[in-house]
Amino acid sequence: MTLVRPENPQQARLVRLLRDDGPRSRVELGDILGLSRSTLTTELDRLVARGLVETAGQAASRGGRRSSLLRLAGRVRFASVVVAADRISVALTDGELNVLAETGEPADVRGGPEPVIARAVELVEKLRAELGVAELTGVGIALPGPVDGGASVAPAVLPGWQRFPVRDAFATELGCPALVDNDANVLALGEQHAGIGRTFDDFLYLKLGTAIGCGLVLSGSLYRGATSSAGDIAHLPLGEDGPVCACGEFGCLEAYCGDAGLIRAASAAARGGRSELLAARLAETGTLTVPDIASAATAGDPAAQALVRDAARRVGRVLVGLVSFFNPGIVVIGGAPDGLGHILLSEIRGVVYRRSAPLATGTMPVVLSDLADRAALVGAARLASDHVFTSG
Amino acid sequence: MTLVRPENPQQARLVRLLRDDGPRSRVELGDILGLSRSTLTTELDRLVARGLVETAGQAASRGGRRSSLLRLAGRVRFASVVVAADRISVALTDGELNVLAETGEPADVRGGPEPVIARAVELVEKLRAELGVAELTGVGIALPGPVDGGASVAPAVLPGWQRFPVRDAFATELGCPALVDNDANVLALGEQHAGIGRTFDDFLYLKLGTAIGCGLVLSGSLYRGATSSAGDIAHLPLGEDGPVCACGEFGCLEAYCGDAGLIRAASAAARGGRSELLAARLAETGTLTVPDIASAATAGDPAAQALVRDAARRVGRVLVGLVSFFNPGIVVIGGAPDGLGHILLSEIRGVVYRRSAPLATGTMPVVLSDLADRAALVGAARLASDHVFTSG
Repeated sequence: MTLVRPENPQQARLVRLLRDDGPRSRVELGDILGLSRSTLTTELDRLVARGLVETAGQAASRGGRRSSLLRLAGRVRFASVVVAADRISVALTDGELNVLAETGEPADVRGGPEPVIARAVELVEKLRAELGVAELTGVGIALPGPVDGGASVAPAVLPGWQRFPVRDAFATELGCPALVDNDANVLALGEQHAGIGRTFDDFLYLKLGTAIGCGLVLSGSLYRGATSSAGDIAHLPLGEDGPVCACGEFGCLEAYCGDAGLIRAASAAARGGRSELLAARLAETGTLTVPDIASAATAGDPAAQALVRDAARRVGRVLVGLVSFFNPGIVVIGGAPDGLGHILLSEIRGVVYRRSAPLATGTMPVVLSDLADRAALVGAARLASDHVFTSG
Repeated sequence: MTLVRPENPQQARLVRLLRDDGPRSRVELGDILGLSRSTLTTELDRLVARGLVETAGQAASRGGRRSSLLRLAGRVRFASVVVAADRISVALTDGELNVLAETGEPADVRGGPEPVIARAVELVEKLRAELGVAELTGVGIALPGPVDGGASVAPAVLPGWQRFPVRDAFATELGCPALVDNDANVLALGEQHAGIGRTFDDFLYLKLGTAIGCGLVLSGSLYRGATSSAGDIAHLPLGEDGPVCACGEFGCLEAYCGDAGLIRAASAAARGGRSELLAARLAETGTLTVPDIASAATAGDPAAQALVRDAARRVGRVLVGLVSFFNPGIVVIGGAPDGLGHILLSEIRGVVYRRSAPLATGTMPVVLSDLADRAALVGAARLASDHVFTSG
């Protein structure tokens, strides 16, 4: 395979700027990066010669001679693979990480890594064939659990995946550099590239849903911690007892506030006669889902609202500690089920603003992500591009 | 005043290396920093000519011609000022941040900033005269509370200091660049320079004592957060009620586990007949101190031990969240009163290792700082030098 990557730090800064800001004139590139005219010309010529950068028409005149716009070349193509508990999604992006095509399907990730990886590779190859992509520049993979060294570690959701070399498998199958990270980190990267995170150097991304986790962007870079487990708050104990968790402990944040925790609380409310709506739904289908809880809550069912609010307040109390400690510029919440986002947000905000240090939260927004499912696909491409777009 | 600082990034890297590692030969400096022979010669000659670097004798031979050692020049002198709730301490250091002289005295910081700053300046000037220091390279100041923009903000311990321009006052009085930060950050910098933090890129420094706070070193740099309040965990709520705190809220970490919280619990134990030792001491002196609690605990008094252990477990439960979230390489605990450190440490370790994510804490040591009082003086000098030793 031909490695398409910058040769030196100047080239790396140029391709990252074109990735993040889109087409630019030579003058703009030189101004923004503070490069001398001669360095700029040399490095851009090298990048064009190597097929990473191409001309993209004329820039608007600034009074003098019109200069041509430069952009990342059409041969720069990233693949994204997002493995969720019950689904795989894949996409192809251009160099600016715009999604060119995407597809996905249900998948049984508990059946182990090989069939899931094989199917994900097939889906990527199908998109490649449809778009006529000759070679991939890199592939980023999101897994639903802790990742270290390109493999899943201690994965509650992925029991058969322990230490399976996911990164190497994708690199071999797709013939390009592969990077693997956990879903919360990948979502934070997506938010950094295409969401409100673009305008903050330091932010906290909180992922709700089946699994709960955080991604931390510090000084513009994802922070992974000493052993790649930063942000892993799913199993914080909220007290000495509480509901049993998938991890075997009691009273973990995720056991209260993850999807399974919400469903357990809703089933109890239905069976305990505290919610006619939930009881009717349970009688009808035999089991409750998070969308059931969301429709009951938005229909005004007091028990459904109460259990969602209770979960949100617990999340909020954990956030109070995290924002006091970390002092982010913004908190972005993703993964909230349709219909529940605003109830969750209002309760979480209430707790965070009431009991956090005023210095840390006085001007700190707490918002819902507006990227939806695309955040993970963009983030996985960003993960791959951050790796490829470094020098040598 | 003559500003003694590097002129470009290469010079900045050279002086920081000489500060952190001590005298080095030209060959070593070139090897460590990856500088070409010509760049190295040019920049070192400039640093010598400008009086920042000097020759320090011959290096051990590596087989060829003996080369001379270089070190930071004798004219590089930093001042440290540490303002505590009831005391000021000052020191002068050389360029490697070795303390050359120090002094201190009780001070009533609640009387407002002017007299305290005036007295600190006098003490610095006294040390300068004793050591014959013609000019200071910089001064670092530690304050016991949140700091933003060179001033104390929302200071519970320093009520009259709100927004007083502490940095500017010291810069004017001492005629050199001045930097101000909160004590937990300054202690973390001291630990980074002269303690076990030297060997970790990412660590968490937890300061106990009158006030509780954290300093975070991430990727080798102090992390201050979006609004300079990172690490400010003193007022994390540990529950919905609990003892009243100096901040006006209830159940804050500091209200339970700060010195005042320990003393309140000890007084209650004495008055409630649960501790003969503490009751006798209270009857004798009319008030209990943390050293009283420490001597009762080390003498085996069950009530004193229980209240210290209880406070330690609360600190530990907060740490569980912080280490899962931040995944540091090590946790260093400072500010523990003499005699209580090991009781605190063993309880804190018990909670942290039992209930943190194994990935985050599997290889993470939790240790007591072995720097004692000197950490803050070294850290304040480091604060100043980090600022001065950047390229102009």
